[in-house]
This record gives sequence, structure tokens and C-alpha cells, in this order.
Amino acid sequence: MPLLHSWVESANAPGCPFPLNNLPYGVFSVGDGALHCGVAIGDRIVDATGLEAAGILRADPDADVLDASFWNDFMDLGAGAWAAYRAALTALLAADASEEVQDQITTYSVPMTEATLHMPFVVSEYTDFYAGKHHATNVGTMFRGPENALPPNWLHIPIGYNGRASSVVVSGTDIHRPWGQLKGPNDDAPRWAPCARFDIELEMGAIVGQPSNGPISVDQADANIFGYVLLNDWSARDIQAWEYQPLGPFQAKATATSISPWIVTQEALAPFRCDTPPREKELLRHLRDTGPMLYDIDLSVTLNGETISETNYNEMYYSSAQQLAHHTTSGCPMRVGDLLGSGTISGPEKHQRGALLELSWGGKEPIDTKSGPRSFIEDNDTLTLHGTAKGDGYVIGFGDCIGTVLPALKDPFAN
Amino acid sequence: MPLLHSWVESANAPGCPFPLNNLPYGVFSVGDGALHCGVAIGDRIVDATGLEAAGILRADPDADVLDASFWNDFMDLGAGAWAAYRAALTALLAADASEEVQDQITTYSVPMTEATLHMPFVVSEYTDFYAGKHHATNVGTMFRGPENALPPNWLHIPIGYNGRASSVVVSGTDIHRPWGQLKGPNDDAPRWAPCARFDIELEMGAIVGQPSNGPISVDQADANIFGYVLLNDWSARDIQAWEYQPLGPFQAKATATSISPWIVTQEALAPFRCDTPPREKELLRHLRDTGPMLYDIDLSVTLNGETISETNYNEMYYSSAQQLAHHTTSGCPMRVGDLLGSGTISGPEKHQRGALLELSWGGKEPIDTKSGPRSFIEDNDTLTLHGTAKGDGYVIGFGDCIGTVLPALKDPFAN
Repeated sequence: MPLLHSWVESANAPGCPFPLNNLPYGVFSVGDGALHCGVAIGDRIVDATGLEAAGILRADPDADVLDASFWNDFMDLGAGAWAAYRAALTALLAADASEEVQDQITTYSVPMTEATLHMPFVVSEYTDFYAGKHHATNVGTMFRGPENALPPNWLHIPIGYNGRASSVVVSGTDIHRPWGQLKGPNDDAPRWAPCARFDIELEMGAIVGQPSNGPISVDQADANIFGYVLLNDWSARDIQAWEYQPLGPFQAKATATSISPWIVTQEALAPFRCDTPPREKELLRHLRDTGPMLYDIDLSVTLNGETISETNYNEMYYSSAQQLAHHTTSGCPMRVGDLLGSGTISGPEKHQRGALLELSWGGKEPIDTKSGPRSFIEDNDTLTLHGTAKGDGYVIGFGDCIGTVLPALKDPFAN
Repeated sequence: MPLLHSWVESANAPGCPFPLNNLPYGVFSVGDGALHCGVAIGDRIVDATGLEAAGILRADPDADVLDASFWNDFMDLGAGAWAAYRAALTALLAADASEEVQDQITTYSVPMTEATLHMPFVVSEYTDFYAGKHHATNVGTMFRGPENALPPNWLHIPIGYNGRASSVVVSGTDIHRPWGQLKGPNDDAPRWAPCARFDIELEMGAIVGQPSNGPISVDQADANIFGYVLLNDWSARDIQAWEYQPLGPFQAKATATSISPWIVTQEALAPFRCDTPPREKELLRHLRDTGPMLYDIDLSVTLNGETISETNYNEMYYSSAQQLAHHTTSGCPMRVGDLLGSGTISGPEKHQRGALLELSWGGKEPIDTKSGPRSFIEDNDTLTLHGTAKGDGYVIGFGDCIGTVLPALKDPFAN
């Protein structure tokens, strides 16, 4: 599919992350105004809440689903409504739209530079996976040696654990370095201290757009995914090392998880579908791919503006659809707004690793940056995830996923 | 504190679980009627939603917080409102209430036998702990031998993991035996099959009634807990054994978690506060008890009506307040309606174990019951948790926490 031309000229510029082919969904405010649902096009945001209230573009004839500061009610309408709304929006923004339409839409839009972006949806529950083989192999090698790098179940199920929805924040939210209970292997006793090994995890987040209540197939899971965001699962490696046995990460992952501000729909990403890598062990039938369910999305991480990692979502061993299918096997009910982190996305090469833990090999090989050597995040470092799907004459962007790590707050339990 | 006498005669009967001293909060419906908030007194339910609408008893002068099918908005008001509402309710139901009041309240109440009980609150997020030392020692001994029974961190932090709020159901909800991916230690490959080792976990659930956004002290955590329920964390032991390394239980715990229908408030339980057992290792300061924060509550489990376990909540090593404090250490935001499972409550004796895994020692020593020998749950078994705090001339009950395990649904992925 080539570039779809819009009368919003900035959307047609080469490299613009928000061409008419994209139309991602976010939530914005201007000044002290209310939070509205919005759609990015070029350098503007179309006020979806305003268009609905004016009767110009409605997703549901009977309910004001966009009279909200989140897209959950819209998602709840289902795939038919998603497609119809996108088609109508595409027509209103296409180069051949009438001048009257252009005037109307212009009235209900704002320059992106004037807007503040907010969480685009209410996170019902958050699950994080561990489904990148390069990442799992690297981490496993560091902790258990190369022979035992991958756990025995790794090639049979997309390993996941439940995270904390209350800790998910939108790009641009500052993160304070967490306090926690730490104990090094040679320490006699644990101590209460700020995390010294604070890290990123470069991930994609899949957003569940339709509920389910029992085991669903991979095909159904794929259909139930509304869209994708970039996701940074901030990780306190030293807290994790002490707490995670035997029941998994808990406080190490609960400080914050940042997501990019725009939900890029599955429809916008359709041209970028690709297969998962060849299976090393045949999966049980209910987890097998039935078509291309990963996406070819270039990803990178910058530290204070300097690129420290470059990889691609197509490096994952399991797709989000496979993860969602596995998530339902025991009968676990899934709800609109559930967020599934892909797991850290690392490529095979050193510069393709999606976490500082891997880039610095557990801190043993600090990386050189213009900000100085880095094993883990230092105070006031800004970490940014970038994602771009490269089409035929256009690109699809997510908006950057940015977070600055501020120093730890003073000891909340000091006398 | 002795029995408080009510004009609702059934509330004064010896052994009644809902005397005036209790006043637990639930949600009920009658016939095809709407879901209302209700308060249990004797053999009746007072219609709190109706009393609010009639202006007879309001929790908030400005907002209809009980015009809802959940108690979350009420919890959100905070401890001052909780105490004032309870005091007003106590006065309306006390033996010396006027005949006019008695008539009014009778109008706004229904016999418990005519009501259906529903989830008493919306579960924001669900966390389960592993904070009973007898349970952790038993399970650890089975899996790792007696020398390595307790993980190194166990005496320093209340180990917990995030569960799945969408799977929490009210007592009386039938549970289908889950399907899952299983692999025994001697199997060549995993297979897709119904769980063969389905189990209960006898727990208490603490309900967070006030939000927090950063590390809080144990005292503050104690104050933020609104009340308690009985909680059965249904567990698929064979799914868990294959999936849980390295990131903890996931689908094994996602089929369902049942809770008792009545939230017993912290105020009702105040006379039953007791200390945690002596520490075997001194805790870091931020996790130390500052007063009695466990409760003396007799607990038992019946299988098809026959008692198979009897223990007490006071056997726990960590209190819910300590668990909530630990939950916030990394800055994790907590919200009204968060549910914290205590972890399985086992006593030191064999008949005091709170899971079949322990009672049958991993299936090696099936227990004898009138329904036949049991290593784990069999199809159509009904498991019930009971809880009673024994006061001076009265008892406090929670309503039983009942669940029947139905056979697995037919293979959802069969051709």
C-alpha cells in the first residue's frame, strides 16, 4: 500500500510518523481544557470527542463512546465499529475531501505542539511476557550459564507474569529511582536502599480490545488485539535478584511502565505483518501460528539522545496473539484494556540488545556513551524508545516513549 | 466488648455470624431486581442503597456513593466516613432504637434467604502472598528438601506476586476444572490436558480502602485496609509446576479466586487483633510491626461438608498491613479495591494445613474422606472455607466461601 494523501499537508511529508495510513488514537488536552480523545494526522490532532459531540463523526449512533478521556468504550464496540470508524475518518482526511469537510475538521483539530498527551486508555490489567529468545538467552546465560540459559518450558509456552496496571504511565512521565530491599550475594543481610541497577526493557505493548471468557485460539486472540504501543518496562535489577525466587518479579517491576502516547491500530500495521522465526520445538496445537502475526517494526533506544540499541519487533519468538491465547488457557477472563508487554526485544547482535543488563553484560562491560560509561541508568538520564514501520513511501510511528529517571526521593522511613 | 443487642432478634442468637457487632458489607439482589449495597444483621440484609436514596442513612451528604453495585465509592470516602456510617448504622439497629426507626429499617431490609449475593466490590488489582511459614515450609520441603525449604528472602520480605483481578469471583460461583499445558518430570514433552492436581488455598483477603502513591509505613498500611474476606485461591498444581520458573505462577492461578460475600470491616475485627509470631530474623525497620495487626480468626475447610482442615489466621508470619507496606516500597501506586491474599494459612499440625497439596503431601498420602480418598480435588467436589472470630458472647462471621469444581469443559481446541 502506498502513501495515502491527505489534505493535511504535513501528513504527506516524507518521514512524517502520522500519515493518513496511520491514524493512531490518543488522548490530549490543550491548556487547562478537558481531556479529549484524539487522532494524530501530520502535525495536528483531530478532536474525536468534539467530532462526536458535533454529530460529524460518530463511532456508535446511540452512545457517546468518545465523550471520555480514554478509548476503552470505543474498543468495546468491536472490530466492525473499529473498521467503520477508521474508514470514515480516512474519507474525511483524504486529499479529495470537500472544502466544507476540511473546514469542519480543521475546526475540530489542534496543532500537536499545543497539546499535552495523556494515557490513551484505562489499563484494566497488565501482563508482561519474556518471549524474546535473544533476551532470555542473554539473561539466562548471565544467571545460569550458557548450557542452562533457556528454562525447559521456554520453547513450549510464552512465559509471562502479571504486572501492575496502576504503575503504567504515559510517555513523558518522570520516574523516581525506587527504593527497595537489596541484598548482594556477599552481603550478610538485606538493606533498605535506592536501587543501584535501574534498567529499561524495550518492548511492544498489545492492547486487548475485546473481552473473552475461556480459552481462545491464536486466531481469535489476534482478532481481539486492538492495537500496539511502545512499552518500557522499567526494571530494578537488584531488587529483582533478591525478591524473585520463587514467585517471580514483584516490586522490581512495580515502579513504573511507560507507554508511547498513540495506539497504532492493528489495521494500520497490517502491511507490516511477518512470521515468527522458525520453531525450534513444535508448539502444541493451540499455540501455533496460523499466519503472520508479528510485525516488522524498527525499534531503537536512545540514552540522552544517543542511540544505544537498534532492533526490530520481528526478532520475537512469540507474537502477542500467541501470548494472549496462552493467557486464556486456564479460563482467565480477559477484558477490554488489558495490556500485554511483549517481553524485552533484543536482536542477536550486541548493539541490538533491549536492556542495559544485556548491553553491559550485567554491569561487567559498561557501554561508552557521550554521557559517560553506563552499566545501568544514572540519575537524570533520559531514556527514549522509538518505533517505526517502514512502508512503501510512508512510515508509521507511535510517538516516542520517553522517561527521565530522577534521583530517589529522600528515605521515606528516615527518622 | 460483649454482644451488642439489636432489635433484629435473630442477630442476638448465640452463634449468629451477623450480630450488631459485625455489620459486614455486601451486595445483594432479590429476584430480578437491581444489585444493591447491603449490610448483614441477623438473618436479614439492610438495603443500604435504599436507605441512602430515602435519605434515612447517607454516607456522604453530597454524593450517592451507595447507588452502586459495589462498595468502592464508599471506601473512597475514608476512615472518618467509615466510622461515622458504622456508628449511625449501629444506632439504627440497636435494641433501644425507636419503633419508628425499626419500622423504617424493616421496610428497607429483606430476609437473607430471599437474596442472591454478588461481588461486594470491584477488584482493582489482586495480589497474592506466600506469607504463612508452615505452608511455605511444607511446600518448600516437598520441592527442595527440608534444608532448603524456606527461600533465603522469606524471613525478610513477605513474598508476593501479582494475580489476576478478572478471575476473582464471589462465593457460590462454580469453577470448571481448567485445561493447561502439563509436563511431568518423566514426560518427554508437554501435553494439553485438564489439570489433574486442582487444589484450594485457604487464605484471608485484605481489601485496600484508601489509595497511596509511594512507600507507606506499616501503620499507614494498617489504616488503609478497609476490611477482610475469606479467600480461596484455586490452584492448578501441575500447570504451576511446569510454568512457574523463572517468573512465577501465571495460568495456574488464573482460573478463579473465590471470596466470601461479606466484607468484615477492620472495626468489627478490632477486638480480635493479635501479634504476629516472634521474628526469627529482625525485619528491616519499614516492615516491622508497631502493634497487633494479625487477627484471631478460626478458619476451617470442608470438602463436601466434612471438615478436612482447621487452623487460625493468627498462624501467619506476616500481617496484611506488612504485606501492603511492602507492596508500596518501590513506589507502586495502590488503589481503592485492591485485594491482597494473605497466602495459604496452615498451622503446625497436619490437620491444620490449608491446601490439599500439603494435606496429602503432594499426593503421596491421600486423605480419607467420606467422599473417598483425596489427593486433590475431584470433579463435583464442593470446597468451603469457614471463618469465625469468637468474641465475648458473640461471634463474627464472613459468610462461607463456597465453590464446586465442575468437570473440565470439552477440549476447546478439539477438531
